[in-house]
Amino acid sequence: MGCQTDQELLGIIERVKPLVAKGKVADYIPALKAADQSNVSAAVFHITRGSDVCVSAGDIEQKFTLQSISKVLVLALALIDQGYTNVFQKVGMEPTGDPYNSMIKLETSSHSKPLNPMINAGALAVTSMVNGNSPDEKWRRILHFVQCLLGGKAIGYNKEVADSEYKTTDLNRSLCYFMKQHGVIDGDVDELIDIYTKQCAIEMNCLDLSRIAAVFANNGRDPQTGNILIEEEVARICKTFMVTCGMYNASGEFAIKVGIPAKSGVSGGIMAVVPGKLGIGIFSPALDERGNSIAGAEILKIMAEEYHFSIF
Amino acid sequence: MGCQTDQELLGIIERVKPLVAKGKVADYIPALKAADQSNVSAAVFHITRGSDVCVSAGDIEQKFTLQSISKVLVLALALIDQGYTNVFQKVGMEPTGDPYNSMIKLETSSHSKPLNPMINAGALAVTSMVNGNSPDEKWRRILHFVQCLLGGKAIGYNKEVADSEYKTTDLNRSLCYFMKQHGVIDGDVDELIDIYTKQCAIEMNCLDLSRIAAVFANNGRDPQTGNILIEEEVARICKTFMVTCGMYNASGEFAIKVGIPAKSGVSGGIMAVVPGKLGIGIFSPALDERGNSIAGAEILKIMAEEYHFSIF
Amino acid sequence: MGCQTDQELLGIIERVKPLVAKGKVADYIPALKAADQSNVSAAVFHITRGSDVCVSAGDIEQKFTLQSISKVLVLALALIDQGYTNVFQKVGMEPTGDPYNSMIKLETSSHSKPLNPMINAGALAVTSMVNGNSPDEKWRRILHFVQCLLGGKAIGYNKEVADSEYKTTDLNRSLCYFMKQHGVIDGDVDELIDIYTKQCAIEMNCLDLSRIAAVFANNGRDPQTGNILIEEEVARICKTFMVTCGMYNASGEFAIKVGIPAKSGVSGGIMAVVPGKLGIGIFSPALDERGNSIAGAEILKIMAEEYHFSIF
Amino acid sequence: MGCQTDQELLGIIERVKPLVAKGKVADYIPALKAADQSNVSAAVFHITRGSDVCVSAGDIEQKFTLQSISKVLVLALALIDQGYTNVFQKVGMEPTGDPYNSMIKLETSSHSKPLNPMINAGALAVTSMVNGNSPDEKWRRILHFVQCLLGGKAIGYNKEVADSEYKTTDLNRSLCYFMKQHGVIDGDVDELIDIYTKQCAIEMNCLDLSRIAAVFANNGRDPQTGNILIEEEVARICKTFMVTCGMYNASGEFAIKVGIPAKSGVSGGIMAVVPGKLGIGIFSPALDERGNSIAGAEILKIMAEEYHFSIF
Repeated sequence: MGCQTDQELLGIIERVKPLVAKGKVADYIPALKAADQSNVSAAVFHITRGSDVCVSAGDIEQKFTLQSISKVLVLALALIDQGYTNVFQKVGMEPTGDPYNSMIKLETSSHSKPLNPMINAGALAVTSMVNGNSPDEKWRRILHFVQCLLGGKAIGYNKEVADSEYKTTDLNRSLCYFMKQHGVIDGDVDELIDIYTKQCAIEMNCLDLSRIAAVFANNGRDPQTGNILIEEEVARICKTFMVTCGMYNASGEFAIKVGIPAKSGVSGGIMAVVPGKLGIGIFSPALDERGNSIAGAEILKIMAEEYHFSIF
Repeated sequence: MGCQTDQELLGIIERVKPLVAKGKVADYIPALKAADQSNVSAAVFHITRGSDVCVSAGDIEQKFTLQSISKVLVLALALIDQGYTNVFQKVGMEPTGDPYNSMIKLETSSHSKPLNPMINAGALAVTSMVNGNSPDEKWRRILHFVQCLLGGKAIGYNKEVADSEYKTTDLNRSLCYFMKQHGVIDGDVDELIDIYTKQCAIEMNCLDLSRIAAVFANNGRDPQTGNILIEEEVARICKTFMVTCGMYNASGEFAIKVGIPAKSGVSGGIMAVVPGKLGIGIFSPALDERGNSIAGAEILKIMAEEYHFSIF
Repeated sequence: MGCQTDQELLGIIERVKPLVAKGKVADYIPALKAADQSNVSAAVFHITRGSDVCVSAGDIEQKFTLQSISKVLVLALALIDQGYTNVFQKVGMEPTGDPYNSMIKLETSSHSKPLNPMINAGALAVTSMVNGNSPDEKWRRILHFVQCLLGGKAIGYNKEVADSEYKTTDLNRSLCYFMKQHGVIDGDVDELIDIYTKQCAIEMNCLDLSRIAAVFANNGRDPQTGNILIEEEVARICKTFMVTCGMYNASGEFAIKVGIPAKSGVSGGIMAVVPGKLGIGIFSPALDERGNSIAGAEILKIMAEEYHFSIF
Repeated sequence: MGCQTDQELLGIIERVKPLVAKGKVADYIPALKAADQSNVSAAVFHITRGSDVCVSAGDIEQKFTLQSISKVLVLALALIDQGYTNVFQKVGMEPTGDPYNSMIKLETSSHSKPLNPMINAGALAVTSMVNGNSPDEKWRRILHFVQCLLGGKAIGYNKEVADSEYKTTDLNRSLCYFMKQHGVIDGDVDELIDIYTKQCAIEMNCLDLSRIAAVFANNGRDPQTGNILIEEEVARICKTFMVTCGMYNASGEFAIKVGIPAKSGVSGGIMAVVPGKLGIGIFSPALDERGNSIAGAEILKIMAEEYHFSIF
């Protein structure tokens, strides 16, 4: 199996580095805009090797916020908390040709049901379904769940990013009030936005992200202890959404060209899963025009070609 | 000119009364749902007769809330306050084939500009442009303006209706946050919603409404004192919108079949203007499937046919 | 009443002439592209003066094709042939915020009914309803009707323009097949397209067009003989559509700013009607970004301001 | 590996048989309407067993037309003929939340490019790209290609179904003319429609279909001779589209619940691929509300659960 050494991974990073000049760092909030456009780091977490399970390369200490990658993790938690039927009563399973923040399908669909949990409307509805008697409890359960996926490692969120998004995310408020009017969500919108902006601001490095990806690669089991962290079916559902809707409006093309289940975030992170083999965490903040890390997507394309990582 | 006596108007009301059974009272808030479906009242305010200027028929004491009719009045005030250029920088002038509360065109139009001031998005943007250093001052200026149109008569708003709408109008909040994200409006959304739900809940009877209509019929001048209450151009703009977008998604058909500038509200009120001649106020809460008073629209159709009130 | 002399009209033309440099001649078919961008001509046909009824200015010999202006004339004929109920069973009466050649509302509306007869879909459906046992008879009846509106003057159509449009108008074919699938039209699509492209290519000068406009201004009666050419109700319906949908996606703005019922064509022609007073024919092929003659629209704006021609 | 005997497969068919009563046979053309709603047949073609490679059950002699299943096969041929770059210059790779026959995205997308090759617009564009100097040659090449996938077996098409669809498929003509106007396709529309309706009417039984599916399961190689019929990359692309867009507007849900690449047709056929293992052909004409064979989809769901056939 491929990508066994740091050196090998570094080689791939060197090949994709020139691409960062063609991308653009997200600039809608100052905290994201400050990212170093030239940054590229990656880690591969093998689930089938002995003690030395992770290879990495680039500036692996560099932290970044999860942004939309968090949608997959909170979906897993909501499915654990509420079950398949309840979750998919409120959120659909179909990919969409519309932008991730579009309202149109909410208006034209019967029941105003968001098409899937990877667009913003669906992700907000999913977050609203996490168990908890208070907004604070919901948020702490989300953070705790992510820490469990990291083997108990204490991580937190970037308060500056969360605060900044909270203040400016009126489009998400618009989506929430629309869904509230139609009974898709209930409760206080600002409390939900508060949790959502925090979950998006959860911060880690590519090593951490590769470990979480490895849980999904390992059918929901902790790659080190073998403990079940996510039921196998839930892990499978999450991987399926990563294929059909994980890379914004380039998901179909990414499935064709790369074929690795992956979820990207506007910070430049990508979590990718090679089922039964390994998890991948990537960070490179220069984005292409559809919002995916330009170097990150290319790393996965190279891996798919060289190591035959496509699921298709 | 037609409709000179109470008796004549009563005759028309008797003819349309059977229609109320085919309509449906708005039921999205309890206060509106409580309306008596069989109610029909109307008043005609002539601007060219001597002292005895108004004929009326039906239960003319019955008050109702203005709802969308208020959009025309607040548009007039915003045009007075901010001027043509400022107002139409934020709101368009084009009719739409979409529902009055639709988001779609906001998303697909460049600049997210609401298509016109008679759909909810446009009306909310217009209300946000009324002058005032505080929400309270804006609201008091709106109420004062309406009272001026009534010759100084003290009227108020229905607090129960306003409160009820404030609590449930999440779709309007959704529209506001969408527009806020795109810079069409700024400021606090809930404060704007508070003013807007109050303006919609301004309460009067059909006699009052016919007097306001008479101001528009009289090119903006008070029909009794001759004082300028609204500049002629502003009055003309308002009448034009009443023709192109005043009757929800039946505006085009109403222009063809009736041809009288009119604005309806979901409470069952209709304000109609026969330019240079008279103003009409109607109340009958049974609505047709497009949200217009079923008996009210028929009264205007009969008047158009019998008295040649069409502007076309 | 205004615009009594050629000199007066020439003065207006001189004022608007500089605007043509800002416009753009339609270039989607060679025959239209060949138009002289600097051309401006206009005629005003008074219905209330004695023998000398028409004033004109500019290169009044210049012919142009009617293009979308023909939609109004063929609507009149279809209403005469089929009656109000039949026509409006197939075509709606509502303005739309979508482009004149859009498919979207056909797909999202129940019954796939075109929203109004001034968008292409609606106009095609209207043309299909003209009486005639063969395509050729339908076409000859249309041409004959237009000649009647011209007091019997023999006019024809520009074969080069019609042929060119016939070959390239695949979007209109697309609209037709969509409507055929949904039962809005039946019969052979290419035969319908043939008639439609010919009607759009009917050729005349601004004097002719002003005479046709005068028929509408005169409630359907021939302005010279007083004969009824169009029933009054049909004429009224046509004028109403000219207000709500006559100037493409600038109809609402034109109603506000000018307030004269008008229909424009992509050739640069505008037919405008001042009810009870006069008809106006304008030709100036430089178009603004919404497809209306830039100088032509300004001529009407000046007339509305100086002669109080607005109907509002 | 599962499903080794006819008996085993028959057991599954018996379990799903009661479902057919809940479905509805396609009725838009008489030839499809005549199908026997109670019919269920299936075949599984193993690529890794010796001489006895195929198990089957139900009325396996029953022929059916491919309908949309042909979209996958013609995509493979177009990719072979024109190459990846040319094909995807005209057709996108993204799933859509809109119906398979929708025009909306064509109008709102830049370049009017169909979103993917599994919706009608995309499939028509793909068919237009098949090599051939004449419509007849294109059609014969398509038929020949399908026969190659069947190991040279002579099959044909159902002329009655093709003729019937040719006469009534005005919506597809509408899509074609729209694309022609925008340069996505060129050439004669009716000739393209003729080829397309024939490809949809290619007729076979479930044994045949399972053999074709086995070619895809075998990475494009003939499961009996090992000859390359489709390049591996082309086969991979086809399988990916089957996952993201193969089951109409239930594709996302089918990926979640079943996870087997599959393409359905309105005749009630489904071609499904378990990569590296086997191909499945199913016929059962009773459709669910999204146009997929109700019993067929359930057969695949049972197989996914019992034999772990999901790729996720």
